[in-house]
Amino acid sequence: MLPVYKPFCKAHNEFLYLQRVVFQWYPPNMNKDLTTFAVILAGGSGTRFWPLSRETYPKQLLKIFGDQTLIQATLSRIAPLIPADQIYIVTNPQQEEQIRFQLQAPSPGFITEPIGRNTAAAIGLAAMTLSKKDPNGIMVVLSADHFIRDERVLLEQLRLGREIASQGYLVTIGAKPTRPETAYGYIQTGEALPDFQGAERAARSGFARSDAGGDGIESVALRPPHRVVRFFEKPDREKASLYLQSKDFYWNTGMFIWKIATILEEINRFMPALAKGLKTISEQGAETIKEVYSHLPSISIDYGILEKSDKLAVIPAEMGWEDVGSWNALDEILPKNEAGNILIGNVVNVGCNNSIIYANSRVIAAVGLDDIVVADTDDATLICSKGKAQEVKQVVEILKTKKGEEHRVHRTVIRPWGSYTVLEEGLGYKLKRIMVHPKSRLSLQSHTKRSEHWVVVAGTARVTCGESVYTIGANQSTFVPMGVKHRLENPMDEPLQIIEVQCGGYLGEDDIARYADDFGRAAPAASGITGPVGAVKKVM
Amino acid sequence: MLPVYKPFCKAHNEFLYLQRVVFQWYPPNMNKDLTTFAVILAGGSGTRFWPLSRETYPKQLLKIFGDQTLIQATLSRIAPLIPADQIYIVTNPQQEEQIRFQLQAPSPGFITEPIGRNTAAAIGLAAMTLSKKDPNGIMVVLSADHFIRDERVLLEQLRLGREIASQGYLVTIGAKPTRPETAYGYIQTGEALPDFQGAERAARSGFARSDAGGDGIESVALRPPHRVVRFFEKPDREKASLYLQSKDFYWNTGMFIWKIATILEEINRFMPALAKGLKTISEQGAETIKEVYSHLPSISIDYGILEKSDKLAVIPAEMGWEDVGSWNALDEILPKNEAGNILIGNVVNVGCNNSIIYANSRVIAAVGLDDIVVADTDDATLICSKGKAQEVKQVVEILKTKKGEEHRVHRTVIRPWGSYTVLEEGLGYKLKRIMVHPKSRLSLQSHTKRSEHWVVVAGTARVTCGESVYTIGANQSTFVPMGVKHRLENPMDEPLQIIEVQCGGYLGEDDIARYADDFGRAAPAASGITGPVGAVKKVM
Repeated sequence: MLPVYKPFCKAHNEFLYLQRVVFQWYPPNMNKDLTTFAVILAGGSGTRFWPLSRETYPKQLLKIFGDQTLIQATLSRIAPLIPADQIYIVTNPQQEEQIRFQLQAPSPGFITEPIGRNTAAAIGLAAMTLSKKDPNGIMVVLSADHFIRDERVLLEQLRLGREIASQGYLVTIGAKPTRPETAYGYIQTGEALPDFQGAERAARSGFARSDAGGDGIESVALRPPHRVVRFFEKPDREKASLYLQSKDFYWNTGMFIWKIATILEEINRFMPALAKGLKTISEQGAETIKEVYSHLPSISIDYGILEKSDKLAVIPAEMGWEDVGSWNALDEILPKNEAGNILIGNVVNVGCNNSIIYANSRVIAAVGLDDIVVADTDDATLICSKGKAQEVKQVVEILKTKKGEEHRVHRTVIRPWGSYTVLEEGLGYKLKRIMVHPKSRLSLQSHTKRSEHWVVVAGTARVTCGESVYTIGANQSTFVPMGVKHRLENPMDEPLQIIEVQCGGYLGEDDIARYADDFGRAAPAASGITGPVGAVKKVM
Repeated sequence: MLPVYKPFCKAHNEFLYLQRVVFQWYPPNMNKDLTTFAVILAGGSGTRFWPLSRETYPKQLLKIFGDQTLIQATLSRIAPLIPADQIYIVTNPQQEEQIRFQLQAPSPGFITEPIGRNTAAAIGLAAMTLSKKDPNGIMVVLSADHFIRDERVLLEQLRLGREIASQGYLVTIGAKPTRPETAYGYIQTGEALPDFQGAERAARSGFARSDAGGDGIESVALRPPHRVVRFFEKPDREKASLYLQSKDFYWNTGMFIWKIATILEEINRFMPALAKGLKTISEQGAETIKEVYSHLPSISIDYGILEKSDKLAVIPAEMGWEDVGSWNALDEILPKNEAGNILIGNVVNVGCNNSIIYANSRVIAAVGLDDIVVADTDDATLICSKGKAQEVKQVVEILKTKKGEEHRVHRTVIRPWGSYTVLEEGLGYKLKRIMVHPKSRLSLQSHTKRSEHWVVVAGTARVTCGESVYTIGANQSTFVPMGVKHRLENPMDEPLQIIEVQCGGYLGEDDIARYADDFGRAAPAASGITGPVGAVKKVM
């Protein structure tokens, strides 16, 4: 064991503590050949946080708390443990582009499913893909939409989990329940794993440190790993209360650690249809993935594998974990005022209680509301009884049957060069505010069915229009006729903002031919999955 | 009595009935010298129907039900009884312009108060003003924000009321309660007036007709006038239930009929301070009204006069009357779906009950709401528990303390030549959609602090810019530099629509110099009250 120095400041104490825990469990020569991959499940349909989330803009892309989006926070959280080039995002084609924009540096890999087929298929595809990189590797499965108050505890759980996984266990991460939650699954723990006295010691050293440092980490934060007796799906209130009172029940966080080889073996054993599909994709490559996926069983890894396997272990801990699964989850995460309200943005509150009001720039005036969620966006507002938050997805279903776009996209669309906001659409015209980052430019493009009027309202634009290249500043305008190749560029160090008035008989975003692009979009759009094994590609 | 012909169709039956009732009460030679004026109280602060109503756009300007706004409906309702040039609107300077736009033809007169001082002052000012036109006249006082299901009954009440008023009574219109409403005032009736056997006969003929015609008018629709025992302010639920059970209680509709001379006498008797103020205004004219008004007592006519006078009479009837006083009033007026919801506009409803959801073009998704009012506009949304609808005015108070405009104006502002909508305001720019009616034009104007870019998106514009006059069509643009005289005109028979991008350091609506205007706005704006007695003027 390394000598323990007396800390000379809080940060040093932190460093010494991490050093001690890490090296106690992972002496320098242990597991050095085991590559650890992180697989972050980031699919989802963008329904439960509608209208902030959309089909093409799921909740993991939202800054629901703090300065980072949920997916950015997920990557930051594991950065101390896993390098960016061993992190892979599993997502779908609708959401991939926006996730790529958010995660440009350091850039993870992407594993793209043609359609969502629940977690068993997603994890299977990831395991198959990563086994080609390192069949002996360890795979940590995380979700892109979790909140974790004490990330240090999670890191310790993952380090311990990696150790246990290397012995052939399927390890789940358990979170100590803090309330009789009926929206979560539960894990019942059995006997402690006998082989991890080191972990026990680490747990004890955690206790000692907590007592000594008084930094708020409870002595229960670290617990030795246990076997799993059983999984319990979302219970009713009565059962949830019993689980809460017991010391043997933990929330199933949906975070897992296992050897790639172990999970592939278990898929072979318990889900032969999935195993066969993965084999086809592995052997025949990208062309088959769409066809194979359409026949895969759509079930969760819990139901398909974990409830059947005898290799399960759980690492329990208290880390302030929450699944950001619906608007109600904010109640457990964000600070409230004296009346129990969470008020964000331009809210006028007159006598509300226990309500969540998520405004934007428009005024949201709430009078005398109890247990109501309000979420406002440019083109849609949700008002929902807290008890019915799960039914928001029905709203999205209804919107899909209408001709609108409010279930699919936001008015503001983020692009690698900046963003645009659709301010208004009318018969024969569409109005956009376009913001271009400093030193960025859109593609060289043309449209067959519309012309564009541009008025610069802030910054300076370099405009390519046909053969001409010229510069215009604030309060100047230009005209791009239909069919003419053009490009908008911000050559300066300040953002460029223009108002664009499009005129034409058809104004869809797909009326665009790209001739050159800084972001690789000039080639014909790929359909389905491309890259090695059809699924892995890196951000350009 | 005129002979009664057998009706040959429903309309003829209607005509005969009206002829009979009218001539029974008003033989041709009776009251022929009494001019009947209507005074419509249309002030208000635009708070209780916020955000649909605004300080400059009160609820009487809204089409809350049907094709007409509330104030248009009020004028239509009394048109059979009182010619337009005997109708006067009492309002305030903030709201006068928009009311004028709505009531251009036939055009009523306007009596403008510098500030609101409740109904006693408003009625006193109107009585004083009209006494100069005909001191022997009759004055009908109406509100601009009432709903009346059976307008024929009201007309009959007013005809009868005019008769009674000519005998020196202060006549109030009572409405039979249909529920134990706690938001209305009540009138307790005493003995029947002995002098109006004719009215009794009319009432009986009303019965007979109802029995014969079977057209849905209840036999109680017409009742003989009574003396008033007492007024009761908004009662609690228990008292309201007792009033409902009694046959002697009626809702105080706030509609009155009296001789101008009678109400002025009573003001002299019971409100000497008001009487003195009115005398000053009458003698000294427009200059004094602002000063005088600031010292007038701000009390209602009910409290100041009616509760004290011994000249009161009430005409009770059932006409389906409602005061459109708050969002809750819609419950009594608009049709509901099976779950008790009133859903207007682009609403997605998932399991709501007894809620009022007033959407516009944006999607309003409501999930599991009970007894909630939602009202959406371009720049503000209200979500309010039905039980707290009276507290909406607090929202407006809070907004006044912020720097925004959401309590004062709408994004869309109606003008006599068309309308404009502020689509977005940013640092250094403002974006408007401008619609110009066929064959209409804005004023010849200039701005000192902004220039304007115009893009025509529909129709054809004739543009005056400096010395040039030219025509541009859809997908064409033009530029109006700062300080240059310009004019926008629609010379065609179809509406003209343009997008305007304003650029400049200051973008307020008051940066405008007008040189010529079709709507009389080129002269410097009048401050306070102008015209005869300082208060009466006609729409130009």
